[in-house]
Amino acid sequence: MVEIEHRTERLGPAGEPARGAARRRWPWPRYMRAELGLRNYWYPALLSRQLGRRPVVLQMLGEELAFVRDGDGVYCLQGRCAHRGVPFSEGRREFPCTITCPYHGWTYDLKSGKLVAALTDGPDSAIVGKVRLQTYPAIERQGVIWAFIGDGPPPRLEDDVPPEFLEPGAYVGGRVFVWDGDWRVAMEGAIDPSHPFYLHRSAWLSTPFSMPAARGKHFPEIVDGRYLTYSTEVPLPVGDYPGLGRWPRVPWWKRKRLNKLGVWGALPCQSRVVNLNFNLPFETYSWYVPVDRAHYRWFTFLVARGVSGPRRWYAWLKYNLWLKWIYQGQFLRQDSLMNEVMAPFYLEQDGWLKERLHRPDVVITAWRKFVEENARGIQEPGCRG
Amino acid sequence: MVEIEHRTERLGPAGEPARGAARRRWPWPRYMRAELGLRNYWYPALLSRQLGRRPVVLQMLGEELAFVRDGDGVYCLQGRCAHRGVPFSEGRREFPCTITCPYHGWTYDLKSGKLVAALTDGPDSAIVGKVRLQTYPAIERQGVIWAFIGDGPPPRLEDDVPPEFLEPGAYVGGRVFVWDGDWRVAMEGAIDPSHPFYLHRSAWLSTPFSMPAARGKHFPEIVDGRYLTYSTEVPLPVGDYPGLGRWPRVPWWKRKRLNKLGVWGALPCQSRVVNLNFNLPFETYSWYVPVDRAHYRWFTFLVARGVSGPRRWYAWLKYNLWLKWIYQGQFLRQDSLMNEVMAPFYLEQDGWLKERLHRPDVVITAWRKFVEENARGIQEPGCRG
Amino acid sequence: MVEIEHRTERLGPAGEPARGAARRRWPWPRYMRAELGLRNYWYPALLSRQLGRRPVVLQMLGEELAFVRDGDGVYCLQGRCAHRGVPFSEGRREFPCTITCPYHGWTYDLKSGKLVAALTDGPDSAIVGKVRLQTYPAIERQGVIWAFIGDGPPPRLEDDVPPEFLEPGAYVGGRVFVWDGDWRVAMEGAIDPSHPFYLHRSAWLSTPFSMPAARGKHFPEIVDGRYLTYSTEVPLPVGDYPGLGRWPRVPWWKRKRLNKLGVWGALPCQSRVVNLNFNLPFETYSWYVPVDRAHYRWFTFLVARGVSGPRRWYAWLKYNLWLKWIYQGQFLRQDSLMNEVMAPFYLEQDGWLKERLHRPDVVITAWRKFVEENARGIQEPGCRG
Repeated sequence: MVEIEHRTERLGPAGEPARGAARRRWPWPRYMRAELGLRNYWYPALLSRQLGRRPVVLQMLGEELAFVRDGDGVYCLQGRCAHRGVPFSEGRREFPCTITCPYHGWTYDLKSGKLVAALTDGPDSAIVGKVRLQTYPAIERQGVIWAFIGDGPPPRLEDDVPPEFLEPGAYVGGRVFVWDGDWRVAMEGAIDPSHPFYLHRSAWLSTPFSMPAARGKHFPEIVDGRYLTYSTEVPLPVGDYPGLGRWPRVPWWKRKRLNKLGVWGALPCQSRVVNLNFNLPFETYSWYVPVDRAHYRWFTFLVARGVSGPRRWYAWLKYNLWLKWIYQGQFLRQDSLMNEVMAPFYLEQDGWLKERLHRPDVVITAWRKFVEENARGIQEPGCRG
Repeated sequence: MVEIEHRTERLGPAGEPARGAARRRWPWPRYMRAELGLRNYWYPALLSRQLGRRPVVLQMLGEELAFVRDGDGVYCLQGRCAHRGVPFSEGRREFPCTITCPYHGWTYDLKSGKLVAALTDGPDSAIVGKVRLQTYPAIERQGVIWAFIGDGPPPRLEDDVPPEFLEPGAYVGGRVFVWDGDWRVAMEGAIDPSHPFYLHRSAWLSTPFSMPAARGKHFPEIVDGRYLTYSTEVPLPVGDYPGLGRWPRVPWWKRKRLNKLGVWGALPCQSRVVNLNFNLPFETYSWYVPVDRAHYRWFTFLVARGVSGPRRWYAWLKYNLWLKWIYQGQFLRQDSLMNEVMAPFYLEQDGWLKERLHRPDVVITAWRKFVEENARGIQEPGCRG
Repeated sequence: MVEIEHRTERLGPAGEPARGAARRRWPWPRYMRAELGLRNYWYPALLSRQLGRRPVVLQMLGEELAFVRDGDGVYCLQGRCAHRGVPFSEGRREFPCTITCPYHGWTYDLKSGKLVAALTDGPDSAIVGKVRLQTYPAIERQGVIWAFIGDGPPPRLEDDVPPEFLEPGAYVGGRVFVWDGDWRVAMEGAIDPSHPFYLHRSAWLSTPFSMPAARGKHFPEIVDGRYLTYSTEVPLPVGDYPGLGRWPRVPWWKRKRLNKLGVWGALPCQSRVVNLNFNLPFETYSWYVPVDRAHYRWFTFLVARGVSGPRRWYAWLKYNLWLKWIYQGQFLRQDSLMNEVMAPFYLEQDGWLKERLHRPDVVITAWRKFVEENARGIQEPGCRG
């Protein structure tokens, strides 16, 4: 278990938002700088179904990147031609395994990023061989196109993506959305142990469940040097709050008890929830990929491992008819809305310094410390391919 | 009567917009700094009908503020939870006279702003009592929710709101709009003596009226140390303009003579017009409340004092069927449109230094001087609750 | 012929975008500063049909300008009243050859820009004669309203607008659009010799034409000290590109040969294309007038000189039924779209320093050098009337 700092305790006197001094004491400087994300990781870039025969140019970690399908491969390279900066979204395919800029016919090898022809300058063009675009390793697995945004040779995909997610036949379905907000706030929300039993009380899926008032202390721990998770004390079904009274009042028809969820966070921006209350052994995997400093791309997947035959059909139906809408659509959307409305606080109002944390945020400070100490790299603003 | 400075006279040679030097000579430095408004005053925040059972979060004087109804009271506190910055627009009511943040259940006392529970951290949460939100005094009177945006104990509402406006039974109806523009420009337009007889010539209400060409000199004065008003010379019905000729040409059907309007301005951003040409003793009260530096919230009310019985019904009908649309809707909208199109000049093009004033602007410079010398405080950008 | 610098050769090692050092070596400092355009030239401001009885206020070269018709003349003056900055778009006409601000009746002489009355201040207003607005010479010729944006006495219109364009009866039709992008990038695209035979392959007008692969070397030259044009080597119909193969593959139905186009560029931002493939002697004239640093106003005209009688009718019909849509609408729009998508590269991503040029860009570097050495003036940000 990592040693946890209760940041709240170290803040100024109650009610006084810490200034000046706090900036110097902020205990996670790399984390604070990482508004564009962490470098040298595999990230989901697109769902397979989003990339057809036309290239797609999108923004990730503040970089404009082009994704191209060619033959059996997928390729990722910087999003604009080196000549005059035209993006490859209108790029054409004149030769195998190349992409050609629509403006003057500069043609690049998809694997190396090298300029292999400047068509309108003729076969004897002197610029050929003198220009090379940034490329990133890309691969298609489990219905997703992944890119390694980093330098040097990449690790194996399994080093960054949980092997359970990649298990053949486990994938059930995924959705992707771009939301306003800071990716770190979104990722912290995904592993935050204290909001689920308050925010999500109003979700449709929560209707039959009796939710506890609180869960006492939380104990974060690092598993395999790779995942951050936590255990908790026994939940308190109803609390007697000093000066206020008993809470919550539980109506008679809220009788179902919740499973003990398992929540895991992993670098660079991935969360996993197991032991969901869905009859089948569904697991949620999400990524909160920075787009730029004010937006993130949220991938969320349901996976059912070890389910075959008719139960597999049942899982597919349950996902497409029910969970896709009621869980990924409404339940998890509550989190995204929180991230969106927090955005001005964190992006414009110095929220990282003004926030006040409470006891369950020990999991979040553990995560910040984990990132601080283990992130392979910080994406700098100048990293645009 | 205050001593008036004719700023025009002190500018550089004709046609030369003053620069550099002018910035130093700008005679009203506090006024110029007050782009977010004046602090320590009662302001209208909402019409009563705009605040129901759900909290409303809005921006005033550059601050995000939450307004909440609870029992018979209205409360005003800073707009975001101190924990992670979630705004209270989705706040819930778990206990009387409190508001609870929807994300993690932080619960605040509406009167004191004190954190009284962190529901998801349980009854023994250590953060309770250590956090306090900014609150402002709020009160509901005459169909309006008022907030004292300032520090320390507030004055009586009657010290800032004209008692005539608060007279029981006098209120007829009000509207509120948010417009682009600087609140100071809007407020200056409200007391400006020279535009009414030019800009509003094209208003529908002006159709039967013969409007004078000009009104010669204006004499501003301060009444009761509280209101700025002015008197004028006898209006000039038609003028003979050198090199141009006689103006205006008055068609035969424009024969009605205008009443002598009474116009009053008061701190912080309030205007009053009496002796309107509406048969009944209607009076107009307006507030131009800063939202942020580029927007203001315009409250405009009609009041009829000393009118009872059937004439009260007549006033109500005349307002709702006619004046609401033709006066507040079209006539006064001409002013708002001017404020909107002036916005780039004052907000981006150094208009405060480039403007050239003429003789009737003596009323406006008197107002600036009055604000300069009497404003209780200037709202600074950092005042965000 | 001007001496041409192959900028590509002078850049850093292949694949390395030049930084720091390159900024010092950028060979065209005036050109680089000219993001708001070149000063002291005649520019097209509006098509005649766009200016009716109401004034039009628009932005050109970063200045807000008002255009007014009065009697037989057109006038151009700064867009806002000197008093409080109200734009003249709602200006009224109270006296001949004047414009009156709608707010307080300040009345300006259209020819001189002098304040000749402040109506609401009466005939004895002391401000009259002390204020003068910036004016620019304006003239209406060939269906276009032209303004000389500069200081001092203007040259003849024919010095800046090609006399062929002004030839009586030559005008066929014109269109105007505002696009996102840098005017310089748009103008460079207009004289760029290498994109037409790649980008426009996909235009409908190109369907029957066999387009060459490349055109080898280009030889820019200055004609009459006024126009930049270029000649080329014999086009290469099909090329054998090392490592890639033969290109293009020409289908049997693409058999028509292209005329040898003549392309000319002229200061400040004008292009001309002759010998178009349209049976009739059509010529294209375009202007890329800066609006602000991120937008330009594109005027494009077709002219047919020496065509009279029934052929004139044929030209009119061919333009209105066909070329207006298929050439100005779709073919040339391909260029505008390129300019739009390049905008982030040049406006936000340091494109002027990161771009890599190839051999045909010799025409563009010749143009840059021509502008650098011959531009009468650079429009500075402070030039707002």
